[in-house]
Amino acid sequence: MAMPAVIRSAQEMQSRSRQLRQAGRRIGFVPTMGALHEGHLSLVRAAKRECDEVVVSIYVNPTQFGRGEDFDRYPRNLDRDLQLLAELDVPWVFAPTDSEMYPAGFDTWVEVGRIAQPWEGTFRPGHFRGVATVVLKLFHLVEPDVAYFGEKDYQQLLVVRQMVRDLNLPVEIRACPTVREPDGLAMSSRNQYLSPRERQDALVLYRSLCLAQERVSAGENDARAVTAAMRELISSVPYAQVDYVALVDPETLEEVTIIDRPVQALLAVRLGSTRLIDNMRIVPPSR
Amino acid sequence: MAMPAVIRSAQEMQSRSRQLRQAGRRIGFVPTMGALHEGHLSLVRAAKRECDEVVVSIYVNPTQFGRGEDFDRYPRNLDRDLQLLAELDVPWVFAPTDSEMYPAGFDTWVEVGRIAQPWEGTFRPGHFRGVATVVLKLFHLVEPDVAYFGEKDYQQLLVVRQMVRDLNLPVEIRACPTVREPDGLAMSSRNQYLSPRERQDALVLYRSLCLAQERVSAGENDARAVTAAMRELISSVPYAQVDYVALVDPETLEEVTIIDRPVQALLAVRLGSTRLIDNMRIVPPSR
Repeated sequence: MAMPAVIRSAQEMQSRSRQLRQAGRRIGFVPTMGALHEGHLSLVRAAKRECDEVVVSIYVNPTQFGRGEDFDRYPRNLDRDLQLLAELDVPWVFAPTDSEMYPAGFDTWVEVGRIAQPWEGTFRPGHFRGVATVVLKLFHLVEPDVAYFGEKDYQQLLVVRQMVRDLNLPVEIRACPTVREPDGLAMSSRNQYLSPRERQDALVLYRSLCLAQERVSAGENDARAVTAAMRELISSVPYAQVDYVALVDPETLEEVTIIDRPVQALLAVRLGSTRLIDNMRIVPPSR
Repeated sequence: MAMPAVIRSAQEMQSRSRQLRQAGRRIGFVPTMGALHEGHLSLVRAAKRECDEVVVSIYVNPTQFGRGEDFDRYPRNLDRDLQLLAELDVPWVFAPTDSEMYPAGFDTWVEVGRIAQPWEGTFRPGHFRGVATVVLKLFHLVEPDVAYFGEKDYQQLLVVRQMVRDLNLPVEIRACPTVREPDGLAMSSRNQYLSPRERQDALVLYRSLCLAQERVSAGENDARAVTAAMRELISSVPYAQVDYVALVDPETLEEVTIIDRPVQALLAVRLGSTRLIDNMRIVPPSR
């Protein structure tokens, strides 16, 4: 089990993928910010199943963090990440430096419109601009046939899809299901921030999503009633701060009032200094 | 001499270029808005010299025109364009429809920063956003190895270069010299708008650029004195309206005060309802 080689240079990344493409290899790409967990590894496994070559990038992208957010303390552990990828026989990873990705004078941004504005876009201004820009740069460097994203970051998935469609990128975007801990907590690199107490209380996110499905399965079709129940459950953790809890159209992210079709439940909750997001497809009973 | 085939569909364009690339062909790309003249044809000839395949696009991009600009009356003559390209043995052109390029729901934009702000950026707000966005889309559809732009649109060339560098696009940008009429007027599709009188008076643009070089060659190194002389010459056409006349750093487009190195002279002048731009490298005498 050899450790993956680490490519630091954008130019070297580009020439490697160019060679792979010219050899007719189908490239699967898994962009990550490192601190890998089972969610990331499920993306790598999907890429391995479906493609000839897998490229994993590890880059904590500064431009998608706002002032006062957790860029500085975001977990970084390249050695452990490489170990995990070695177990999946990933031969090399792209882990560029900041100066490779954003050299002096960098001055071009990708702006995705409406789909990037509500929810995370409201609470993290500039976040999706940073995401769209770095994902586009990585796509140009890796030139993948398929790129893998987790449904855990649901709005990010839609933002990337919108960008790919609008800019005619020759990349297929594959969404993979959220991977959860045995007790239901969605896997996230940020779970490392949680104290034991917070880790326990963080279960209210998943439990409130399950509660939404229960209520809807039981016949509730008023979205306000469902989100009120979710908020009430979350408030059982007195120090939990809700950024948003919403039931939205799964494509447009517009809030729904009547649940007469599948909807996406989205939420963002702060527990102490840790901000967690989660989401779930909520399906009404067939009549 | 067969007429070039016309590809209307973005998807067909993408699959054609994909095939060419997989066959190891080097693709040269000449993006145009049609109404082809010798300037465009010089780009096609350069692409033919340097590449295995030449792709010409013809698309009057609505998003780079502002309100009140000349989108509606911009010259369109596909048959004549195809005839000219047939003479150069161009086998097919990409001439997409608006609904192919901007389907309903289109909502992603590329914003290039400082280099896009002065000069044309000031007088045509949103222009370079439209240019950068459509050029990026075309690059994704054509996947060229080299793309050809005229120096006539000098700031556009720098905007495209900035975008390519910042977004790690695997495309080489080649600049080709401005092609002029025998009397010096820079070739432009918009020259068709000029009345015979305006056509004659339009020579002040070129003459003022030549005057700048003369003054600088004669030892003038004060940029204000040079632009004042240029403006005075232009004012010999009483109805000419100057948008800007400037001597700038050829890389940053920042205005210079002392001409102690090569500078770029830029100008935009309106003659009746026609707006013309031109530019020239101005080189001081070596000491």
